[in-house]
Amino acid sequence: VTRITLLTDFGSRDGFVAAVKGVLATLAPRAVVDDVAHDLPAGDVLAAARALARYWRRYPEGTVHVVVVDPGVGTERAALACAAAGRFLVGPDNGVLTPALSPAWGGGDAQCVSLAAEGFGSPVSPTFHGRDLFAPAAAALATGRALASLGTPHPHPVELAPARALRTAEGSEGEIVAIDRFGNATTSLPGAWADGCVLEAGGLRLRVRRTYGDVASGEPVAVVDSEGFVEVAVRDGSAADRLGLVVGTPVRLARG
Amino acid sequence: VTRITLLTDFGSRDGFVAAVKGVLATLAPRAVVDDVAHDLPAGDVLAAARALARYWRRYPEGTVHVVVVDPGVGTERAALACAAAGRFLVGPDNGVLTPALSPAWGGGDAQCVSLAAEGFGSPVSPTFHGRDLFAPAAAALATGRALASLGTPHPHPVELAPARALRTAEGSEGEIVAIDRFGNATTSLPGAWADGCVLEAGGLRLRVRRTYGDVASGEPVAVVDSEGFVEVAVRDGSAADRLGLVVGTPVRLARG
Amino acid sequence: VTRITLLTDFGSRDGFVAAVKGVLATLAPRAVVDDVAHDLPAGDVLAAARALARYWRRYPEGTVHVVVVDPGVGTERAALACAAAGRFLVGPDNGVLTPALSPAWGGGDAQCVSLAAEGFGSPVSPTFHGRDLFAPAAAALATGRALASLGTPHPHPVELAPARALRTAEGSEGEIVAIDRFGNATTSLPGAWADGCVLEAGGLRLRVRRTYGDVASGEPVAVVDSEGFVEVAVRDGSAADRLGLVVGTPVRLARG
Repeated sequence: VTRITLLTDFGSRDGFVAAVKGVLATLAPRAVVDDVAHDLPAGDVLAAARALARYWRRYPEGTVHVVVVDPGVGTERAALACAAAGRFLVGPDNGVLTPALSPAWGGGDAQCVSLAAEGFGSPVSPTFHGRDLFAPAAAALATGRALASLGTPHPHPVELAPARALRTAEGSEGEIVAIDRFGNATTSLPGAWADGCVLEAGGLRLRVRRTYGDVASGEPVAVVDSEGFVEVAVRDGSAADRLGLVVGTPVRLARG
Repeated sequence: VTRITLLTDFGSRDGFVAAVKGVLATLAPRAVVDDVAHDLPAGDVLAAARALARYWRRYPEGTVHVVVVDPGVGTERAALACAAAGRFLVGPDNGVLTPALSPAWGGGDAQCVSLAAEGFGSPVSPTFHGRDLFAPAAAALATGRALASLGTPHPHPVELAPARALRTAEGSEGEIVAIDRFGNATTSLPGAWADGCVLEAGGLRLRVRRTYGDVASGEPVAVVDSEGFVEVAVRDGSAADRLGLVVGTPVRLARG
Repeated sequence: VTRITLLTDFGSRDGFVAAVKGVLATLAPRAVVDDVAHDLPAGDVLAAARALARYWRRYPEGTVHVVVVDPGVGTERAALACAAAGRFLVGPDNGVLTPALSPAWGGGDAQCVSLAAEGFGSPVSPTFHGRDLFAPAAAALATGRALASLGTPHPHPVELAPARALRTAEGSEGEIVAIDRFGNATTSLPGAWADGCVLEAGGLRLRVRRTYGDVASGEPVAVVDSEGFVEVAVRDGSAADRLGLVVGTPVRLARG
């Protein structure tokens, strides 16, 4: 069973995602297609990359991950198909694929090609590469076509900068890198750096606990999240709202 | 592999969609079920039709497209199963299936039957035909049952009027037919009519360009969309908000 | 074909759901995974249970239903895998699985085990049991592993109280138990109790009709819903908004 995953900012209700899935059903009828999400903030390349980081390696080898957050569709930006750690990645060359491509993000030893727009036998709309270019490329990979046959080598894809995370004499300095649906705020600071430290975030000093339930309902708490990074939460509430945290807010681990 | 697609206004969180999918899993266990969307505006038949237009032909022949936006559920309106261009369509007879049934919308040579409510061996709730009537009909088609066996011929299904699109001495006149998640506004005017013309929309005169990136960020632009119609966009922004466009707003192509 | 369904409050856009689906794809590659919904109100155990009630029995026997609404993740609350009416249920022991486990909710003769966190061969994050504990348990059940082998017997899972529904000399008394996306308000009163009665809800007295279309657009109406309970609706509108109904609002059936 080969799987194709789809992460976009298209929304579902206009039928664009279904047009992509129809193309996949036509060209790779035996592949299983998993929706990741289609409600990413429009054009938010960083949010797409942060999401991709959470799942791309959880899928088995051979999976084709398609990510289309593409404000530059139809311009000179390249369209990529890549292989990394046994998975395939397909999307625009604007940084969305960074987690799989960049060693600084934990990515694999990646190989990328720039897709040839004319390579798939049908006209390509300059405003809908998801349907006309990325979906055919994903279907080709899912049905066993070689990556190298899909385009020309593209050795230097765009990579988003890694989040700031520095060890200092007093502990370490980092930043908030993502806010999830619950208002939990992930930091760039590895949990392994937290030993003997307290987290300073949003004007509070928080000891790092095991889980949310280690404090009373409504209380702020720091934990090590499911990816191994320090996270700020409020039990049964939103840390982002309560502590005024946004992506980029500085945080510190200080020897306490 | 036979596919069934689902487009509804049920929302997902109440479990109604899952009840439909459970019935499909029971009656057509080998069919692949694709969610299109379940967050259509409640009761918005036109929005459902505009979405269906974007994907129904992208799926391979044999696909069963189910569309349930059905404010008249349980009344005398017919429940339809249809065949058009090798695909099947299932839904209420209120216009939602128009893109596949009406030649004026690009639909195929369609055949429809009115579903017999008693035809599927289980009681039919008068408020949930999605689960009790449309899902069993879709499962029957997906498992090879003949369309004609599902009901009585229904030669004149309800059809939504096509959007206004007129060629005139000075160019052409049309209207906004859909606003997508990005605020891009699709018009009823074919791209082929745009040669040598400028688009007049929302008080602006716009040359038709190739893609969004052909103007600076924040600037309005007209393009030919992925279905072949003229579209109004604002790069990295919302044309609907910026230019005050809604479904039905008049637009013109004028020889410039 | 074995199916696994997923109902969570994770939201889709952060990639947590996809991490769960990646684990399922790795451990149970031939199982079909159905998304139910991921936009449940955060931490709303009752909303999850009400949704589960609508679909768990509609799926065929052998289906594995995963429900993760889990504000107590990582605390001493048990993690459950259960069998009821031929289906499997997986989720936290906080009441979310009540509809399948409790006879008062229509549940089956259930058997439950408390999952051993160490039983699946990988480290378990104290903040993401969905990925590290519930998904591996669901995959194990979907691939034929015996329920009893997944943990220790857990004979008394947490059960939510059934909604209030009392027959009285004058008729019956109950309450609103759920509001759906359309603003329709389901009550705890069985449709079979409505004979010869009028529904009193939100200050109105309503005769129980067959379907929404039996009154004029904009008018309130009582019907028997698709699960067999009396429901309050406003045709083409929201009964919850119009009549000020919320979950818990008292309602009555009075001999009229």
